[in-house]
This record gives sequence, structure tokens and C-alpha cells, in this order.
Amino acid sequence: MNAKSKIWIEKDGKPVFGDGRATLLETIDRLGSINKAAREMKMSYRHAWGEVKLIEKRLGMKLLKTQVGGRKGGGAILTAEGREFLERYHRFRDGINELVNERFEKIFDL
Amino acid sequence: MNAKSKIWIEKDGKPVFGDGRATLLETIDRLGSINKAAREMKMSYRHAWGEVKLIEKRLGMKLLKTQVGGRKGGGAILTAEGREFLERYHRFRDGINELVNERFEKIFDL
Repeated sequence: MNAKSKIWIEKDGKPVFGDGRATLLETIDRLGSINKAAREMKMSYRHAWGEVKLIEKRLGMKLLKTQVGGRKGGGAILTAEGREFLERYHRFRDGINELVNERFEKIFDL
Repeated sequence: MNAKSKIWIEKDGKPVFGDGRATLLETIDRLGSINKAAREMKMSYRHAWGEVKLIEKRLGMKLLKTQVGGRKGGGAILTAEGREFLERYHRFRDGINELVNERFEKIFDL
């Protein structure tokens, strides 16, 4: 037996950020493009873009810096604020599984 | 902003126990009947019974003591083992939200 956990952030009672959205932002940043990230994550550009806008609106924070045009077309990378937010999210999130499992094993004598 | 968490127990990579199943077992025990518990939880008797059998099979544990017939019809209550398991589940589960929120507030400076 082992314990599993799912963690997310809410604002005003609405889910605003979790692992899926973290991965989306990180993929956009890594590939430098919402379009390429959407393709890699098998979602439509429209959906990916809508997710980013929703997160930014709910958090009241600009997460992506987008550039239009240029020789290679537009691009998108994380803002400093977005990078800081993701860094904190990971610090918060990454230890949780371990924490939950330690507690589980202690209480269930495993 | 606040953090939310969902916690469950797996065995051999399959989900076996969480808040929904804990509530089902507790409702059966409180009402002394799978049938009444199913009605209160708005599920079919068949589904409730199937859930109990599934949990017992996956945990390798007899959780409910059922009695057939008698003047008031059959009844069901938790076995000592079932009661012990639920008690541990609550000890494990009930502090997690607080733990997760403390961590969240510390990391996000809230």
C-alpha cells in the first residue's frame, strides 16, 4: 500500500493552478512557442492560449512574454514573475508526495 | 490563494481507498445497513455492495460483518479490523490539508 496525492492552488474557491498548467507553461517556455507546446501536449492552440489567459487572469499576473512576427514567427517565454511563480510552485509541490507517504507509513506501520 | 489536496491509498498501482469509500463504510456502520446507506448516498444497492467487495478484495481484509434475516431484516456493521483501518485512515488523512496549507503559505509568503 502507498499513499497518493493531488495538489492544486485555488483562488476565491476556484482551481487556478496545478501540475497540468505548470507543465503547459514550462513546455511553452522550453519550446519558446505556445503553438509548439500545444502540439507537443496534444491540445489545440486555442485551448493552450485560453489556459494561459485564464491563469493570468485568475492570478492577476503576467506569466508569458509574447513576441509577434520576426523571421521565425512569434515566440513566447516566461516573464520573471512567471518564472518566480513556477519556482515557488515546485518548491511547494515537489516535497508533498514524500511528506504524505512518510505520514502514511508511520500511521499504517509499514 | 490557498492550496487544496486530494489524498488516496493505492495498492499495486490501483486506487483502493479515499474519502468517498471512507464515507460509504461509515454511513453503512452508522445506519447498520448497506441498503439504507446506499439510499442516503444516492447510489444503487448494487453499486454500494460492489464498492465494499472491491475494497475488501484489494485490501485483503474483511471490513463489514453482515447479518442475514432476523425480525428487522439483515444488517451490516464494521468489523474490528474495518474500524481500525478507518481510524488509521482518518489519522492519516485529517491532518494533511493543514500540512499542505502551512507549506503553501510559507513558500508563497502569505
